Amino acid sequence: MTSIDLNADLGEGFGRWRLTDDEQLLTVVTSANVACGFHAGDAVTMRRVCELAAARGVRVGAQVSYRDLAGFGRRAMDVPSAELAAEVAYQIGALEVFARAAGTRVSYVKPHGALYNRVVHDEEQAAAVVAGVLLADAALPVLGLPGSRLLEAARAAGLTGVTEAFADRAYTEEGTLVPRGQEGAVVTDPEAVVERSLHLARDRAVIARSGTRIGVDARSLCLHGDTPGAVDLARRVRERLESSGIRVEAFV
Amino acid sequence: MTSIDLNADLGEGFGRWRLTDDEQLLTVVTSANVACGFHAGDAVTMRRVCELAAARGVRVGAQVSYRDLAGFGRRAMDVPSAELAAEVAYQIGALEVFARAAGTRVSYVKPHGALYNRVVHDEEQAAAVVAGVLLADAALPVLGLPGSRLLEAARAAGLTGVTEAFADRAYTEEGTLVPRGQEGAVVTDPEAVVERSLHLARDRAVIARSGTRIGVDARSLCLHGDTPGAVDLARRVRERLESSGIRVEAFV
Amino acid sequence: MTSIDLNADLGEGFGRWRLTDDEQLLTVVTSANVACGFHAGDAVTMRRVCELAAARGVRVGAQVSYRDLAGFGRRAMDVPSAELAAEVAYQIGALEVFARAAGTRVSYVKPHGALYNRVVHDEEQAAAVVAGVLLADAALPVLGLPGSRLLEAARAAGLTGVTEAFADRAYTEEGTLVPRGQEGAVVTDPEAVVERSLHLARDRAVIARSGTRIGVDARSLCLHGDTPGAVDLARRVRERLESSGIRVEAFV
Amino acid sequence: MTSIDLNADLGEGFGRWRLTDDEQLLTVVTSANVACGFHAGDAVTMRRVCELAAARGVRVGAQVSYRDLAGFGRRAMDVPSAELAAEVAYQIGALEVFARAAGTRVSYVKPHGALYNRVVHDEEQAAAVVAGVLLADAALPVLGLPGSRLLEAARAAGLTGVTEAFADRAYTEEGTLVPRGQEGAVVTDPEAVVERSLHLARDRAVIARSGTRIGVDARSLCLHGDTPGAVDLARRVRERLESSGIRVEAFV
Repeated sequence: MTSIDLNADLGEGFGRWRLTDDEQLLTVVTSANVACGFHAGDAVTMRRVCELAAARGVRVGAQVSYRDLAGFGRRAMDVPSAELAAEVAYQIGALEVFARAAGTRVSYVKPHGALYNRVVHDEEQAAAVVAGVLLADAALPVLGLPGSRLLEAARAAGLTGVTEAFADRAYTEEGTLVPRGQEGAVVTDPEAVVERSLHLARDRAVIARSGTRIGVDARSLCLHGDTPGAVDLARRVRERLESSGIRVEAFV
Repeated sequence: MTSIDLNADLGEGFGRWRLTDDEQLLTVVTSANVACGFHAGDAVTMRRVCELAAARGVRVGAQVSYRDLAGFGRRAMDVPSAELAAEVAYQIGALEVFARAAGTRVSYVKPHGALYNRVVHDEEQAAAVVAGVLLADAALPVLGLPGSRLLEAARAAGLTGVTEAFADRAYTEEGTLVPRGQEGAVVTDPEAVVERSLHLARDRAVIARSGTRIGVDARSLCLHGDTPGAVDLARRVRERLESSGIRVEAFV
Repeated sequence: MTSIDLNADLGEGFGRWRLTDDEQLLTVVTSANVACGFHAGDAVTMRRVCELAAARGVRVGAQVSYRDLAGFGRRAMDVPSAELAAEVAYQIGALEVFARAAGTRVSYVKPHGALYNRVVHDEEQAAAVVAGVLLADAALPVLGLPGSRLLEAARAAGLTGVTEAFADRAYTEEGTLVPRGQEGAVVTDPEAVVERSLHLARDRAVIARSGTRIGVDARSLCLHGDTPGAVDLARRVRERLESSGIRVEAFV
Repeated sequence: MTSIDLNADLGEGFGRWRLTDDEQLLTVVTSANVACGFHAGDAVTMRRVCELAAARGVRVGAQVSYRDLAGFGRRAMDVPSAELAAEVAYQIGALEVFARAAGTRVSYVKPHGALYNRVVHDEEQAAAVVAGVLLADAALPVLGLPGSRLLEAARAAGLTGVTEAFADRAYTEEGTLVPRGQEGAVVTDPEAVVERSLHLARDRAVIARSGTRIGVDARSLCLHGDTPGAVDLARRVRERLESSGIRVEAFV
């Protein structure tokens, strides 16, 4: 029986500010990418999301980022390797306290925003992220884009690299994401997103922008939680997958 | 044989800025209060101090603080209990990653600056700090002032409360510190500091401001590392203690 | 003809996070307390709010705060006077750039959150805020609570102290606000808020918690902008005031 | 009579941390690049440096930076143009308050660190910096590298672009700086720095790494203030210039 993981970014408020509907999303996803304080995520929120996730059996992952609250981690930064590695480890450690207190553990690491995009191509920063994961816990899987330098570096270091796909993003024929900003980069029709989710989960494939069917290696699907209607769409995706006989379960 | 611990604040730089001579102080102290990023302490520095401490057999403690880089944690803040507890746990967890990576563990917790002073009297914040320690690790000793609400709360919660004294601070007859700002609050003569250290370690006593000898319960002496001559003075204290037959060793 | 100013806190997002419906509130209020980056308020938002305010003839005020993004400026801090004064001036200066670029000026200063509450009673911090205003511009009025140390210090320094009242807060017989946390501290019924607004504006009076009518000196009414229904309520307040013959206009 | 300006970065501490010997450097330089709080520079320090500079007749410039205290502004960041422009203006406005309070004005703008290097080549960020300057004050000169996109954009916008040179950096034959990290990039011999300063000021020329003499357009020389011996070296440079008949004076 085919299975797929559903992950989403959670806990992305900071102090007075809220962004993600953590409670509702945690009824849908199987893996929670919890913000660790560098782009979002105060300590109280981290604790609460870990408690909610643990209570529902959702896996807790460290959503590590550049240190950039003002930019929400969406601005690429030339961070030297030693700094980046240490900052990744710092974030994992901070989250681990709340995961353990809630009776679970940090189960994987996923870079956020500009760092996520950077480590698709940047070998140095990819290696630094992996070094940070190794500092924290050499058994942690890393979640990223198929073919990314990040997953290559993770596997080369003996870590498990876990692939993910985006049902709401257009793909090129080469299997990469159409950059945001280009026309059609984001799939906005909910029904299309649901269909693409099923296609990705069941067939490990998607229809590229050109109309061609391409294979996409994905052990997890990333759902977005910070847009209006995000929770409803996430629910529909999960229902369609399950009603189609796909088992929705965490990858670890 | 009488023994005493020597602790000092370390790693109190941030990015480009340096404050404490970590390398030298680690040749003297037995317990290192490592800044965890809230009042000082970037991730690279935390990692390096943990490595140096582990290599020398110096215990690593989490020097937890209010979130206040601009004020170096020296400005009292009315932080709600849930926030303070979570922020204390966050800091401990972040440091734990580097302690473990260096082959050691976070062995105790000591509040910094305004938080340290606040939890001498403030029951609510004292309880919050203890709650944060319990979230992180229920086996961690807490270092503080004898008679403080902090040590009371720690012991009431089943934690070990460890007492410390200050050889360079004047004491009232009641055994409390003469507040900074009052005349004679700080002992600046190095030889006097050395003598008082010996008195505190050997006799668990000190000459109060009034000239009366008073008892001071202290399992550890706090040495200051951020003043000119700090390293030399720390060395002289240690030498006098050892040449007087006191064993200088960590309390855990 | 009686007149009243309506003020509200605006621009209280930060980067990715939004809180206040700035565009809508600017159609209602006559004075905009713009967050200046210390508790909220990024530079892009400050610029935009100034442009919108200038376009509508709404006065721009500097909503100065403790440096505390994580606590949204709601945690009292023991900031030394020289630091507080300089930080107040810094915030006013930063906002002034955007006000001028939009063709207007910073027209007044109002402390935010915990600082606002602190300077009701704390003479030292009240004096420091006034010192900060004087550093920036000795002609700026200061907005605060009647009878507060802040307005006393402002007037003693030759500044204009402008009084404000809160239609959605309960008052004691002595004319002070019932502290949040006490029962009935906040008036939640919209119609009651509207009526109290009219009472405050027309009669400079309000019904205290005890049922007694008391006088309240208020040249401005503070409307809250960060709650659901805030914009609608603000509109209803303004309409009731205007339909009752009160002129709604800025105090400067 | 030939004249030259001497500029240096000042006020680069933050809270408890100090870096530059502001008081001494202000006895040597004619233009002070004052840190504005984004990479360094708290409000108290900004105020003090402005007062000292004004008392000595030294020009105050806004040393604007990426928002990056942890990295001291030395990490290039992909900041969108609207954000960068607004953040530049914010910093200039904050400094202007202290300059005016001290009886002077912000007289020019110079980008710091990674932003300085980025706008040598990056047209978009160069245009954003200039847009920020225009927001703040359309009469402010911009200080930068000859041939940089920054000075081009400044002049295209009607601002005065002022050129500077570095006596302690090696030059390529094309007149650009040898990148840090390459051998010989930094001239460490004090006497050589003094000689190169004179050559640059008197002849508008320098000996490139290849041994060839090249012309360097420089209305100002940048002295470094954050290294041991910096103040002494700065003094020697000034003395050699003056004893050689060069008038040392601000460019505005």
